[in-house]
Amino acid sequence: MSRRAAALVVGNEILTGKVVEANVPLLAKMLFELGISLERVVICRDHEDTIVRELDALRVSHDVVFTSGGVGPTHDDVTIPAVAKAFGVAIRRDEDLAKRIRDHFGARTTEGHLRMADLPTGGLLLANDKVHWPVLAMENVYVLPGVPEIFARKLEVVRERLGESAPYLSAAIYTRCDEGTIAALLARIETEHRVLVGSYPRFDESDHSVKVTFDGTDAKAIDAAVDACLAALDPGLVVRIERAR
Amino acid sequence: MSRRAAALVVGNEILTGKVVEANVPLLAKMLFELGISLERVVICRDHEDTIVRELDALRVSHDVVFTSGGVGPTHDDVTIPAVAKAFGVAIRRDEDLAKRIRDHFGARTTEGHLRMADLPTGGLLLANDKVHWPVLAMENVYVLPGVPEIFARKLEVVRERLGESAPYLSAAIYTRCDEGTIAALLARIETEHRVLVGSYPRFDESDHSVKVTFDGTDAKAIDAAVDACLAALDPGLVVRIERAR
Repeated sequence: MSRRAAALVVGNEILTGKVVEANVPLLAKMLFELGISLERVVICRDHEDTIVRELDALRVSHDVVFTSGGVGPTHDDVTIPAVAKAFGVAIRRDEDLAKRIRDHFGARTTEGHLRMADLPTGGLLLANDKVHWPVLAMENVYVLPGVPEIFARKLEVVRERLGESAPYLSAAIYTRCDEGTIAALLARIETEHRVLVGSYPRFDESDHSVKVTFDGTDAKAIDAAVDACLAALDPGLVVRIERAR
Repeated sequence: MSRRAAALVVGNEILTGKVVEANVPLLAKMLFELGISLERVVICRDHEDTIVRELDALRVSHDVVFTSGGVGPTHDDVTIPAVAKAFGVAIRRDEDLAKRIRDHFGARTTEGHLRMADLPTGGLLLANDKVHWPVLAMENVYVLPGVPEIFARKLEVVRERLGESAPYLSAAIYTRCDEGTIAALLARIETEHRVLVGSYPRFDESDHSVKVTFDGTDAKAIDAAVDACLAALDPGLVVRIERAR
């Protein structure tokens, strides 16, 4: 049984259309490679009570939870206090981290900077040699920043910790079929071969009209599903095949 | 009091990292322009019970709800039956729509195609002259497809229906300040001027290190907040200003 993951993206800038969310695609790909199933993503406002409520639900319903955003020094950065409240623990200043912040900012250090050393009691700090500041892990919740470059670097730290279960594999058939025509076939293949079959139509100038995907952890089952699908499709409408790697 | 909106994005392809979600940015921008506050986005799997549960919560907690994805002819398209279940109504085949589908696909028409005419009882079909197929509205829920080109066209149909309340306005100051240094200033301006102040750091080769945004519905209040912020910032660190339009 694979682990189930969820993500909470915090940011008014995404919900007002100022910034296009860029961290979920990266997270989704990494979890797929690790064989962890991303089941649910919630995007919410920079509002402490809202984050507390969302996080308190996700940390119980899912094995692993990621947050993105709301961890800087300004008034709209409220994710860390919300994590503490969701776990019912106090915030304490991590003196080692506060010292590193003072060393880094020197005479320019403000209370805003030092707030970044205020962590939920019981939180762990994870690091490798690629990140300047550590990643906060609170039980099954990993707290990551919204800025995509830093999110990506910190995600690598989390990847090392999560390790690998059986990775997911994916195959695809690109066709010029009409989606309605092959609907019954795809439903039958999903049931008979116990792989997850997806169907993604396109209405642009692409070389195919429907991409059919076959996902699972068993390479033989995926291959068999692809073969069964190919046997039933008009070969003249099959544009190309990607086997599971 | 502005209307509150939520969105439910349905799609395994997004949660497995195969496809980058592209409809939320468009929806978020449109709602901001209309003065409707997008409060929450949930991304979930193509799983009927999950969609029912998510939608049943969102339709009650928010004034307007949008779904994206899961409305085609294949087995993984389960949004429409889920909408019916969330509202506790039966699915019925819309005979007008079924006839249009038969006219369109002719002899190639399958039961998969015709399933697209199965609608929740009480649902309305909205259209304008730009869309080939109508948009389903079920009370406060608008059901849109996942394919971005069609999502965009159908969203225009919904825009006409939603009309405009007081639109949101946004101003921005791009600075080379350090975020921690201006944190206290930004918190004070948000409180004193009653506008929503956001702070977005960058760590790339951009010409600025922090973009500060000022959102609200009152242009004078936004202008005053921008002026107050400029008066307190080192002018040498201000890169450029965008006034609220």
